[in-house]
Amino acid sequence: MTVPSFRFSRPVVVVVVLLLQVLLIPPPTEGSPDKCRLVRSLRDEIAGYRPIVDRVLSYVQDQKGYKGRTWTALSDFTDTFGSRMAGTQNLENSIDYMLNRLRTSDLDNVHAERVVFTGWQRRKEYATLVSPRVKNLAILGLGGSVSTPPEGIRAEVVVVNSFDDLFNKSSQVSGKIVVYNQPYVSYGKTVVYRSMGASVASKYGAVATLIRSITPFSLNTPHTGHQSYSDGVKKIPTACITVEDAELLNRMYNRGSKLEIFLKMDSKFFANATSRNTIAEIKGSTDPDKVVLVSGHLDSWDVGQGAMDDGGGAFISWNSLVVLKNLGLRPKRTIRCLLWTAEEEGYIGAFAYLKAHKSELEKFNLVIESDEGTFQPYGIAFHGSETSACIMAEVAKLFDSINATAMLSSKDNVGSDIEVFENMNIPGLSLLNRNEKYFWYHHTEADTMTVEDPDSLDLNTAMFAVISYIIADLSVELPKS
Amino acid sequence: MTVPSFRFSRPVVVVVVLLLQVLLIPPPTEGSPDKCRLVRSLRDEIAGYRPIVDRVLSYVQDQKGYKGRTWTALSDFTDTFGSRMAGTQNLENSIDYMLNRLRTSDLDNVHAERVVFTGWQRRKEYATLVSPRVKNLAILGLGGSVSTPPEGIRAEVVVVNSFDDLFNKSSQVSGKIVVYNQPYVSYGKTVVYRSMGASVASKYGAVATLIRSITPFSLNTPHTGHQSYSDGVKKIPTACITVEDAELLNRMYNRGSKLEIFLKMDSKFFANATSRNTIAEIKGSTDPDKVVLVSGHLDSWDVGQGAMDDGGGAFISWNSLVVLKNLGLRPKRTIRCLLWTAEEEGYIGAFAYLKAHKSELEKFNLVIESDEGTFQPYGIAFHGSETSACIMAEVAKLFDSINATAMLSSKDNVGSDIEVFENMNIPGLSLLNRNEKYFWYHHTEADTMTVEDPDSLDLNTAMFAVISYIIADLSVELPKS
Repeated sequence: MTVPSFRFSRPVVVVVVLLLQVLLIPPPTEGSPDKCRLVRSLRDEIAGYRPIVDRVLSYVQDQKGYKGRTWTALSDFTDTFGSRMAGTQNLENSIDYMLNRLRTSDLDNVHAERVVFTGWQRRKEYATLVSPRVKNLAILGLGGSVSTPPEGIRAEVVVVNSFDDLFNKSSQVSGKIVVYNQPYVSYGKTVVYRSMGASVASKYGAVATLIRSITPFSLNTPHTGHQSYSDGVKKIPTACITVEDAELLNRMYNRGSKLEIFLKMDSKFFANATSRNTIAEIKGSTDPDKVVLVSGHLDSWDVGQGAMDDGGGAFISWNSLVVLKNLGLRPKRTIRCLLWTAEEEGYIGAFAYLKAHKSELEKFNLVIESDEGTFQPYGIAFHGSETSACIMAEVAKLFDSINATAMLSSKDNVGSDIEVFENMNIPGLSLLNRNEKYFWYHHTEADTMTVEDPDSLDLNTAMFAVISYIIADLSVELPKS
Repeated sequence: MTVPSFRFSRPVVVVVVLLLQVLLIPPPTEGSPDKCRLVRSLRDEIAGYRPIVDRVLSYVQDQKGYKGRTWTALSDFTDTFGSRMAGTQNLENSIDYMLNRLRTSDLDNVHAERVVFTGWQRRKEYATLVSPRVKNLAILGLGGSVSTPPEGIRAEVVVVNSFDDLFNKSSQVSGKIVVYNQPYVSYGKTVVYRSMGASVASKYGAVATLIRSITPFSLNTPHTGHQSYSDGVKKIPTACITVEDAELLNRMYNRGSKLEIFLKMDSKFFANATSRNTIAEIKGSTDPDKVVLVSGHLDSWDVGQGAMDDGGGAFISWNSLVVLKNLGLRPKRTIRCLLWTAEEEGYIGAFAYLKAHKSELEKFNLVIESDEGTFQPYGIAFHGSETSACIMAEVAKLFDSINATAMLSSKDNVGSDIEVFENMNIPGLSLLNRNEKYFWYHHTEADTMTVEDPDSLDLNTAMFAVISYIIADLSVELPKS
């Protein structure tokens, strides 16, 4: 499968859906591998890292050590730059700032690698219920949405609660605005309405779609996110509305009211937008060409400050290297920190990196990512061979002092950007963390530093430091299936 | 104390603060009266109402009875009218609608009583952090705030975390915008920053105040609410900002950044605004001039739909009469439903009613109100004499089948509008309900039907019906202290 065709295709969405469903919603029901028969010497070797685990955990929880410094760095960064949408000068400025921070942290091989893509920019947008009464609707246009005509669209509304419901009402949809009021089941199960809602409704002749935001809870909070048009259907404007407004419109529609909405959206596409993946390393002492990759994405949506998605993930990643550096811990293999760009537009930075580094991939031992929140960690989510999972289960045991020994061995990918590498048979890892409220904030104005907790960031940083150190230092590599 | 001087004075605010502190935040620690020595015959008499309790509870939980009808009525109402700010034609239209509904419910003595006041209307308002970077701030001007000059105000910012902090920084405040970033302790303890913040900062020469919204939780959610200027200080524009922005500005300020904000607010005052209290009754069978009053307010702020504050309270009040009417339950004394107007501007409807009905007050046995949410009820909050509290404790026991037997005998008032009557030595009652999240929605765009639960509305309606029926029917009146 070539990279460009894969980038925006339905399989990506489906994989993301499945991935998020596994990762973010349920408790780790798949459980830890219970049939592990690792050789005693390997188990002993892993247990032998306990002094390092203790040292790292002490360091990040010590006022005179690194305590609170991930939070401070993250708040300095997000407060200075705010949202960092791919294609904006603001993101590029924030990347320059990061490169400078990585260099002054004395990390190795600090550099950026160029990424080219088609950018999308939100401009003006608003929606008003004009009949039977006038009410402004809080909306956020979805990434990649086309604009309305300059004069806007005024049209009657059909409210549906599912794709089946839309199918049943399909004869009424032509020329109308379709409002999706699908109930929230889980992000993984429900996000398909955001991803595909416009194209499905367009098939039946809808002129626009307004989609209930993908969240279990709202304070009149519209969410944004990526969407992709299917081939062969007319591209129609599409935005998310709030849970509250979706329910209101649904009630009114079910009472038989004739609803009319005025919608005006204006966005801009620009070809050959550029951005950069940001890279730093701790060079391995004996096998510098072998790699454990630890990552998060620096870009964000254009609402909120991207503190949670994915400032926290990016900052625990590079700070895990800083912690190791500060403690003089250099493993045998290289730990490479990747701060992806343009993740929100469809893993664009990760695909570009894969393409540019394909020949190197066989030397990747493990890809680590945080992109599902940096709340209190409680364990490890892992995707890889059975024996690899057994090794990770031994590593997880080392986090007993912070109650983070849960081990989820997942059949599905456990990351977003790193799924690109997981699909190349490289083991993947992310942290299990108390992210039950993740989707309350996701892609909204509420994604700010208020979400982030200094102590949790410390623990996440420590876990990434320890995990990447151990896997980069072990006598064996994680066996690929 | 004359009514007009009382209406907007500091004592009112203090009383409200104390009241809300008692009512809304802590669990009922004051406990139920445990030294009750009611005569056996009275206890038996109250227990004798159990068949009526069961009948009412069955009726509101029966699909063929009244089940879900309070919710349906409330959603029809709020969806049709939306927000209902005092002084707007929309509120007056909604009052006409209510009068019609009360008449078609076959209640007695349905009418409205005129109320005159000075109205306030929000027009345009916005705030932008202009330095060190540009960021729009979500704001809601506070009720009664003056406008900025037409060209707006651009000024440097001083961030404070308390009145003490402001006092310490008072020499730096002249000509600046004061941002209050006070932590949320409880609504009762924290709301004083919203009520008084502008006047306190104005004393030191501030040109405007932006106040962290009074809530324990936010999704970038600005709140509004009433505020009053102290005598003798210059009136300066004042608005609430979000928790997130207050924390952001605080962090930036503490780093030593010179912050500048541009603020533009435009509001309108209009003298001789009119509105109406809405009234309906079940006339007492033997003592029609004696009254149990059950109430909520129909007006709301101009954001959200006022479904929670106080659509729910108003609707359980009048529906409790409808339930009694439908079941043919007419007590000895009159049950009077009052749907107050202009509560949000400072109990204006209640004060007007008090003034017009002063001679009648001695015949008021009990004033009941719901203005703290209609979530799942779990008992009774009561303010009155010890013996009255003992009577109410016996009534509370009748709600064992729905786990709503908690009895809080409060030294402080237990209502908002009804405090006006409680202060005249009339016993007051409200329901204890699971309103832990009340202030998440309070005075925001998120106060919509999504907050309301049909089953909880049913139970609240039933409890109001039973309580008002029993007290209006008992052989004795609630003894006043």
